[in-house]
Amino acid sequence: MSFFSFELDPALAADPVFDLHKQGKMAISCTVPLSSRDDLSLAYTPGVARVCEAIAADPDLAADYTWTANTVAVVTDGSAVLGLGNIGPKAAMPVMEGKAVLFKQFGGVDAIPICLDTQDIEGIIAVVKALAPSFGGINLEDISAPRCFEIERRLDEALDIPVFHDDQHGTAIVVLAALRNAVALLGRRFADLRVVISGAGAAGVAITNTLIAAGIQGANVIVCDSQGIIHADRPGLSGTKAELAARTNFSGRTGGVKEALIGADVLIGVSGGQIEESALAGMAPGGIIFALANPTPEVPPALAHKYAAIVATGRSDFPNQINNVLAFPGIFRGALDARATRITERMKVAAAEAIAAVVSDELRADAIVPSALDPRVAPAVAAAVARAAEQDGVARFVAGARPETPTAPAALV
Amino acid sequence: MSFFSFELDPALAADPVFDLHKQGKMAISCTVPLSSRDDLSLAYTPGVARVCEAIAADPDLAADYTWTANTVAVVTDGSAVLGLGNIGPKAAMPVMEGKAVLFKQFGGVDAIPICLDTQDIEGIIAVVKALAPSFGGINLEDISAPRCFEIERRLDEALDIPVFHDDQHGTAIVVLAALRNAVALLGRRFADLRVVISGAGAAGVAITNTLIAAGIQGANVIVCDSQGIIHADRPGLSGTKAELAARTNFSGRTGGVKEALIGADVLIGVSGGQIEESALAGMAPGGIIFALANPTPEVPPALAHKYAAIVATGRSDFPNQINNVLAFPGIFRGALDARATRITERMKVAAAEAIAAVVSDELRADAIVPSALDPRVAPAVAAAVARAAEQDGVARFVAGARPETPTAPAALV
Repeated sequence: MSFFSFELDPALAADPVFDLHKQGKMAISCTVPLSSRDDLSLAYTPGVARVCEAIAADPDLAADYTWTANTVAVVTDGSAVLGLGNIGPKAAMPVMEGKAVLFKQFGGVDAIPICLDTQDIEGIIAVVKALAPSFGGINLEDISAPRCFEIERRLDEALDIPVFHDDQHGTAIVVLAALRNAVALLGRRFADLRVVISGAGAAGVAITNTLIAAGIQGANVIVCDSQGIIHADRPGLSGTKAELAARTNFSGRTGGVKEALIGADVLIGVSGGQIEESALAGMAPGGIIFALANPTPEVPPALAHKYAAIVATGRSDFPNQINNVLAFPGIFRGALDARATRITERMKVAAAEAIAAVVSDELRADAIVPSALDPRVAPAVAAAVARAAEQDGVARFVAGARPETPTAPAALV
Repeated sequence: MSFFSFELDPALAADPVFDLHKQGKMAISCTVPLSSRDDLSLAYTPGVARVCEAIAADPDLAADYTWTANTVAVVTDGSAVLGLGNIGPKAAMPVMEGKAVLFKQFGGVDAIPICLDTQDIEGIIAVVKALAPSFGGINLEDISAPRCFEIERRLDEALDIPVFHDDQHGTAIVVLAALRNAVALLGRRFADLRVVISGAGAAGVAITNTLIAAGIQGANVIVCDSQGIIHADRPGLSGTKAELAARTNFSGRTGGVKEALIGADVLIGVSGGQIEESALAGMAPGGIIFALANPTPEVPPALAHKYAAIVATGRSDFPNQINNVLAFPGIFRGALDARATRITERMKVAAAEAIAAVVSDELRADAIVPSALDPRVAPAVAAAVARAAEQDGVARFVAGARPETPTAPAALV
């Protein structure tokens, strides 16, 4: 452990990634003048006291006269960071900063990375509840399953601002968008698809729930974890996995991924575990493979193409990148614009449909989702999410009466 | 309570303060490029994973490769905001944002306002401990006494980053600076001063401790609260006030502010309670009055001048403004530059001496402290604080080996 850490390992100093990350990726900027005595007396004492008094009399005014209505906390405990696992809060910070700057760049959302020095469920819930008055929304990030499910559910119930675990719902929303477009391109019926999901962590569970909510038959979904197919008779199932068993695989199929894939139209990998070619060979012809593990997909794209008509990964260097950045900036932009109290299922589905619609007129097998950099995506998602919030009665702003908040990508500062 | 709060009370809409505060006073900016696929792969996945792994192996690297080393949380529970009292976390936010932008403007420090939805001592301590990996320092703000003393003490013991309650120490530091210069101007001996402090809250207690540490005789200090002089025989004294009684007023004087002021050289008001002219009349001639309550000083400046040679207030519209902004930006700038583990007494005294020194060659009775806008102050304070941190062995950086961090006032963005 280096005490004076600026004496860097030369290997790090030579890596352009480290050069880019030096002193972090974000900063605070001040949006009011502070160069005269009068400036100070308006922005700070004594003038600020009048704003405080008005908010004390009507707490809703905080959304108008503070930055909170445009601000999201990106909260992690560092327990499941990327594919790196439980690396703790300090090592998680570069990812949370990255998320925060993507929020700003694509959604115009001011996001603050918060890496917590606790991995206790009750501790995390207590901290986030205490932080809530400072933010317009909470984006949970890289918290390991199954803890993430209880944390999100209880915070969603307790708070009157949106709570969204991106590893679950962001991933599920982009997968749903991609699957809608893939099915349209192939001329298939969405509701008839037989789907295998390899991975029963945060993403696998959320994808399962979202696809079923969107019309896939639970009977036609099989979820696998590291021990194989999840089925109701498997010993030792509890909690989330018992719920999965009850909602999927009605025929009670048993075995591993290979057995699961027999006759499947769709394989969605969110596990990181490699899937052998012999297993893919059992899939129905002309299907769909989304191998989303990063950096190493469960199936190499070239191999996947032997057994599927449409292939997607999580990587930027292959076509059809399933990337959460297509979802979260627009979802929070829309939720904040509507001053939504929560993010409902309708808002999630609306986000998926908006992402899919951006490229629906220009679909190709290697372009079923927009590019992560497509500037049309976040505004379209934001508008759809805000509309859905109104339809669900969770919007505190009505359409046409919103304040001027930025919905276009923010300029680099 | 307005549900659609943008339909503003016309009185608010017409007030320029409200116009200035619309949507808050700060924003996040991104300091790395994010416009190409390559940009994303460096700032976010997959490149960011290498930075995470390096920090996981050596947590000290977080200070080099994240924004945390330049970032301070401005934490309040909204229990003692300005002179407004316990207005709660949402109404406290405009003040905390104001503090945050002053941190940036004068110290180049990225500060995040955190208004907590708990006023429980254990709750606040637990939350701040959990937040600590995300920040390079903690500035506690507007937390009521006596709770603030225990919260600061326990966080200071628990954390390896600076914890500083500005209402205590920021005020005490600027008071010490002003008093040093006033005494120099008057040709008096600092150690001989007889001092009355009216107010035994956060500021009063800290000023008492700081002045005694700086050389004033405890025997010659008298502290008053709303019930009058604090003395060892007063019934019902406990905690902080019992400690004050043991350290001050050795002659056991009793009575109210009027009795306290008989023969006093210095009156420091930090109570908000008015002090009558008949009480001032008992002071020794040619003395010093600092009437610091905002917006209404304990003694109107014109009246104070009848009984004192040097008068200061907390207001920007009178000469000699005792304003914490002279202290906190430079103190944290210096502590962050040194990567100090805490803020020691030596660092506080060094800050006071640096503030005083900025104007020591140009002293006038109406200019004993620099202007709040004086750009010389924060860099001078930062350098003095960083040196003191090294002398006290709490610096993780040695002199001459610091990274390039901004010590000049930040440009407006």
